[in-house]
Amino acid sequence: MEKKSFAGMDCSVAQCLDVVGEWWSLLIVRDAFLGFTRFEQFQRRLGISRNILDARLNRLVASGVLVKVPYRVHPPRSEYRLSDKGRDLWPVLTALRQWGDRYSAPAGPPVEMIHRRCERVTTAVMTCEACGDVMTYRDVDVVAGPGRDEAALGARATPGGSD
Amino acid sequence: MEKKSFAGMDCSVAQCLDVVGEWWSLLIVRDAFLGFTRFEQFQRRLGISRNILDARLNRLVASGVLVKVPYRVHPPRSEYRLSDKGRDLWPVLTALRQWGDRYSAPAGPPVEMIHRRCERVTTAVMTCEACGDVMTYRDVDVVAGPGRDEAALGARATPGGSD
Repeated sequence: MEKKSFAGMDCSVAQCLDVVGEWWSLLIVRDAFLGFTRFEQFQRRLGISRNILDARLNRLVASGVLVKVPYRVHPPRSEYRLSDKGRDLWPVLTALRQWGDRYSAPAGPPVEMIHRRCERVTTAVMTCEACGDVMTYRDVDVVAGPGRDEAALGARATPGGSD
Repeated sequence: MEKKSFAGMDCSVAQCLDVVGEWWSLLIVRDAFLGFTRFEQFQRRLGISRNILDARLNRLVASGVLVKVPYRVHPPRSEYRLSDKGRDLWPVLTALRQWGDRYSAPAGPPVEMIHRRCERVTTAVMTCEACGDVMTYRDVDVVAGPGRDEAALGARATPGGSD
């Protein structure tokens, strides 16, 4: 399963998964958001083999999600820090976490977010950049953008499974 | 890589990935949002083997993301529709897509969303459920929730890689 790639697919969901969709990659990014930067920290937290962790870190560096920064010369040691591109995965992680909180956290959310500005425990909700209203899949139509052929668009213009 | 599971991890990101983190699963959910419901449609769009597609669909049904609904008796045929749990993955897909649009769509976004209410092409932004302000990783502190042991929380209370 390792060699597969979605790179040829004309879909931004697939393109994002092509970069971070391998097992462990998003959990490494999660830990980077929590402030962890070193190989041994990731390994201890994730409990995966050094080979797999090394491959995942290299892939995330190659794709520009993490930046490898030397912190010692003798012996040479580096740490891994989120780039801007990596930090822009925050909505992805937040959406994954909130879905997991809702459906797979019978004891309650393992972590919570406090919004510094209003100082309340909060959930992120998706709103329309243009008008500010809360948006769900029911509120949008999906149309072809500048980078798309019509065929990929779907069975109907309006998304949303069964109703 | 097939047998791995994050089910034992005390993290809602991992729990969500445990359900939808396998290669193809989120692209099946994406296509379900676009209105596709049938095995042959998914197979044609994704170009994967029947075995893998069958395994992914069964897993999504078992975890309650898709519902298998008979639509013909002779011969028996079923289609796959999103459940409420599946539709609640919309923020995950939207966040993945928007990141892909930003970093992996040199010709422009393959698809765009139009917000029905304001009729504009839009992007979903994450806002605080409590106060309505736009939120990024810089605006939140992550704290232990009711379902968590402190150890998993991280290197520091405030998320965000290098600054």
